[in-house]
Amino acid sequence: MARHARSLIAGNNVDHIVEVIEGAIEDITIPEKVDIIISEWMGYFLVRESMFDSVIYARDKWLKPTGIMYPSHARMWVAPMRTSLVEHKQQEFQHSMADWGCFLQDTSDHYNVDMSCLSNPYKEEQTKYFLQTSMWNSLYPNQIIGQPVIIKEFDCLTTTMEEVSSVRSSFKLPFHPGHSRLCGFAGWFDVHFKGSPTDPADHEVELTTAPSTDETTHWGQQVFLLHPPLNLQDGDILSCSLDITRSRDNHRLMDVKFVHQLERASGEKTPLITSPYFIE
Amino acid sequence: MARHARSLIAGNNVDHIVEVIEGAIEDITIPEKVDIIISEWMGYFLVRESMFDSVIYARDKWLKPTGIMYPSHARMWVAPMRTSLVEHKQQEFQHSMADWGCFLQDTSDHYNVDMSCLSNPYKEEQTKYFLQTSMWNSLYPNQIIGQPVIIKEFDCLTTTMEEVSSVRSSFKLPFHPGHSRLCGFAGWFDVHFKGSPTDPADHEVELTTAPSTDETTHWGQQVFLLHPPLNLQDGDILSCSLDITRSRDNHRLMDVKFVHQLERASGEKTPLITSPYFIE
Repeated sequence: MARHARSLIAGNNVDHIVEVIEGAIEDITIPEKVDIIISEWMGYFLVRESMFDSVIYARDKWLKPTGIMYPSHARMWVAPMRTSLVEHKQQEFQHSMADWGCFLQDTSDHYNVDMSCLSNPYKEEQTKYFLQTSMWNSLYPNQIIGQPVIIKEFDCLTTTMEEVSSVRSSFKLPFHPGHSRLCGFAGWFDVHFKGSPTDPADHEVELTTAPSTDETTHWGQQVFLLHPPLNLQDGDILSCSLDITRSRDNHRLMDVKFVHQLERASGEKTPLITSPYFIE
Repeated sequence: MARHARSLIAGNNVDHIVEVIEGAIEDITIPEKVDIIISEWMGYFLVRESMFDSVIYARDKWLKPTGIMYPSHARMWVAPMRTSLVEHKQQEFQHSMADWGCFLQDTSDHYNVDMSCLSNPYKEEQTKYFLQTSMWNSLYPNQIIGQPVIIKEFDCLTTTMEEVSSVRSSFKLPFHPGHSRLCGFAGWFDVHFKGSPTDPADHEVELTTAPSTDETTHWGQQVFLLHPPLNLQDGDILSCSLDITRSRDNHRLMDVKFVHQLERASGEKTPLITSPYFIE
């Protein structure tokens, strides 16, 4: 990376202006504090890969008090969605469990070994893989069946490690009329380039990764499926709380807990459902 | 793994016989030397992943002088082949280079930045990825267009680290008549369960990963494509030397060098061609 950057700088005759300092930001020393930090640190659903940690480190150590961050702001969005992926994943899961059944039978018939004591761990593993792991997907806007909500906003100038490493949010998702089935949740983000209060940008720029009829971005959307999908009635609102924490085994991956319940127009509430997910 | 093994052993009522000792073989101590080492250490094209290293370690430290290895023998095979993958990969490569051309133009037009100094490294990277990286494939026997040859045999009882970490072989590949084009090389392996000279198996068993009309194994075959394919004449023989070494960056991956030339029935020889490959 540093080698290619140097070659690019020389090839564009700016090597008397631009200096490349190679190394992890946590390890290097730079000659002076800086006016601006520009970094592309965004992972799937913004937080996957935990790359903002290094940007916070750089900001707190090397940014001048008057300095600015690009991007300057980031927002995480969630929306209710419909998709045929829910049947597809359910079928894959069933297929895998049927395979296991055949394997149990074969192992017993041919080798007289009983593998059934591993059925529960097997099912748990397959459930995680097929049903609880969130997926990259490129959604069309018409797959979103209710008003998207912002679940978290970050001001990159002030966000703390605590704020990025654990995202908690409670919110209500209303549905557009005429939808009878909730297949799951879509998550995405946008970032903004606004400058700072004392040094605002002349023209604010937004990078959004929302569902679009145009070409999708690298990030697409992150999809969290509901197994089984929820049946909706007109006027329903989904009351949600969302808890995103870092995986114990790998701090760059995430564990997600959605707790949700439907609030009927009648005032009746369905039981709370807890749906665990993994952003792998 | 150890937890599941223990559960399986208890579930089959053999926990008074079988003991699980958990840990890397290089780290653990076992109570006594052993009669047999059974290990599934085979990677793609046998050697990928370099897992036999640990088996050699276990054998030299823990196997009784009269002990046996299962598998007891392994063989690596190479054969000339035909496949439409060669056009497919060539097209993907051309497509990627065309994308780069558009990117250069856009970057210059919109940002006045000249990225062309990175064209060579980009081409090198894409060449490696699309044209020089060997591929998993499940071949039909009729894609093999000449007699397969054994390029290496291992006796698991005596094979040394030196022998597995660098495989060199020279061989000649004759072609079945009527084939006019060599698209590349297929590599696979088989292993045998023969016991030892002093303690031979009652029934020798072979596990082969050769191209087959039956269901393929997990290992499939490893395919090394020729860009461009070679034109053949009846009676041609390909004279080859093959050099498989471990990648400098990751000792579980391999660098492969095929040097080859066609020997015509007339006695004429085509120039030597060196084809580098990467088993990633």
